[in-house]
Amino acid sequence: MARENRTPVTVIGLGAMGRALAEAFIDAGHPTTVWNRTPAKAAPLVAAGAVHATAVEAAVAASPLVITCLTTFEDTRSALEPAVAALAGRDLTTLNSGSPAGARATAAWAAGHGARFLAGAVKNVPAAVGQADTLLYYSGDRAVFDTHRETLRVLGGDTVHLGDEADLAALYEMAVGATLLPVLAGFFQGAAAVRARGLEAGSMVRFAGKWLDMIKSLLPVYAREIDSGDYTDAASSVNLFLAGAAHDADLAEETGVDVSWLAPLHDLVRRAAEAGHGDHSISALTEILREPAPTA
Amino acid sequence: MARENRTPVTVIGLGAMGRALAEAFIDAGHPTTVWNRTPAKAAPLVAAGAVHATAVEAAVAASPLVITCLTTFEDTRSALEPAVAALAGRDLTTLNSGSPAGARATAAWAAGHGARFLAGAVKNVPAAVGQADTLLYYSGDRAVFDTHRETLRVLGGDTVHLGDEADLAALYEMAVGATLLPVLAGFFQGAAAVRARGLEAGSMVRFAGKWLDMIKSLLPVYAREIDSGDYTDAASSVNLFLAGAAHDADLAEETGVDVSWLAPLHDLVRRAAEAGHGDHSISALTEILREPAPTA
Repeated sequence: MARENRTPVTVIGLGAMGRALAEAFIDAGHPTTVWNRTPAKAAPLVAAGAVHATAVEAAVAASPLVITCLTTFEDTRSALEPAVAALAGRDLTTLNSGSPAGARATAAWAAGHGARFLAGAVKNVPAAVGQADTLLYYSGDRAVFDTHRETLRVLGGDTVHLGDEADLAALYEMAVGATLLPVLAGFFQGAAAVRARGLEAGSMVRFAGKWLDMIKSLLPVYAREIDSGDYTDAASSVNLFLAGAAHDADLAEETGVDVSWLAPLHDLVRRAAEAGHGDHSISALTEILREPAPTA
Repeated sequence: MARENRTPVTVIGLGAMGRALAEAFIDAGHPTTVWNRTPAKAAPLVAAGAVHATAVEAAVAASPLVITCLTTFEDTRSALEPAVAALAGRDLTTLNSGSPAGARATAAWAAGHGARFLAGAVKNVPAAVGQADTLLYYSGDRAVFDTHRETLRVLGGDTVHLGDEADLAALYEMAVGATLLPVLAGFFQGAAAVRARGLEAGSMVRFAGKWLDMIKSLLPVYAREIDSGDYTDAASSVNLFLAGAAHDADLAEETGVDVSWLAPLHDLVRRAAEAGHGDHSISALTEILREPAPTA
């Protein structure tokens, strides 16, 4: 596409991710308008060629495609409130974490102001924005996605529309993102353990990375078990994990590392065994997570 | 190496992993003796060319290199107890989970019976045994590792000696393995959430896999922060995770999925913030995990 035909884009919210989004649009030759509550964050983008709108209403008015990168849906609506008069006829795309309920509320709010709406998420770090393999997924108005597909692909080559319901991306965002804090806590616990032995955390990075590769290779197997409800062909059984739980106390004793955060995980495994899943695949935990926790 | 010069190997413990180990040795042309408490498990290996020892002592006597693949170090010593007279002059290698203390006890026990000792772990699933990229690490007597390096590489091309202390592999096993149950629980929680919406868990596998790739890419950064003790250059701050913790309640409300197992993780994040790490990298959780949990 000739440079002069590239869709003008506005980016609102210039934290680390918002700046990366704006930089990608500037680099790809899109006329780019930026706005941030703290204007100083816009300066490097202006130096790179962006236009800095002095008011959020002017920022919204500047481009047919308005992308917000704020912390939550509530923050997004609050930041855009002074600009609602300019929203009519715009395509609003949010890139933030947040609940499905927040996405639905924002979709209704945008519709009420005459804007089309797409809610999305960047499934990677700011440094990965713009790369061919970087995943972003969106849900909501398919026509918005189709209209701006090539523009959105500037942010990452793996750009997906999940469905017309505006809250699907938020649902997947929470579902997929649910591994982040747990896996980091496990890694930090391991790092604390090797450091307690006088070794560097760096010495376990390669091993921990390959371990995550191994876990990744199991996910399709577990998903098939969960979707079929057939947990009987267990490569790793609930009982195996129950036996493994005892090792955490060993780790604590050996290294002085606090492993108490694992206790409710072991409770889940124990409840799965008690529910008759002892010889079943560990993926049967999904059934336990569906049930309300006992109020013992 | 000519087939007739390949080191005879004994594999004791024929669960899914033990069978995979024995198959790899048979396929590579090593004279292979197997033993299992339940003899039926040896039948397919015998059909493939292994010798089935009828007693554990004969199994130990059959080969200079004896590899055990039992559940724990305690199980290993117990299974080998009738065979201690045959251990003198053998090289004993354990491939199991277990505590560093268990590895040290087994090293002393093996030395007491005149055997050299190496404790290791297979960092992958049985189906990956024998592949070029499969990681196994060992610690203990370096001479055993050097003597049998090529034989051990039959089990996986990425074969590493961590150090002369027999318990190092067990320490790394616990440290590296600490992510497994947490990441699976996160994935199962996500699967329960998308299924509560009437979608298949399979629909999130590709996204969850790329998400793990992203997390893997962060581990070297976090390890550097942890090893330097400098958490100030925060790509993802403790406060960001504290804000994100609120979304878990949203997920529970939206989908009916039990997220209560995450509560102590959020407590860790909160304690990190209270300790002055709010604007620091989330890797500062390592400092909190080093401290004993408050008895509030």
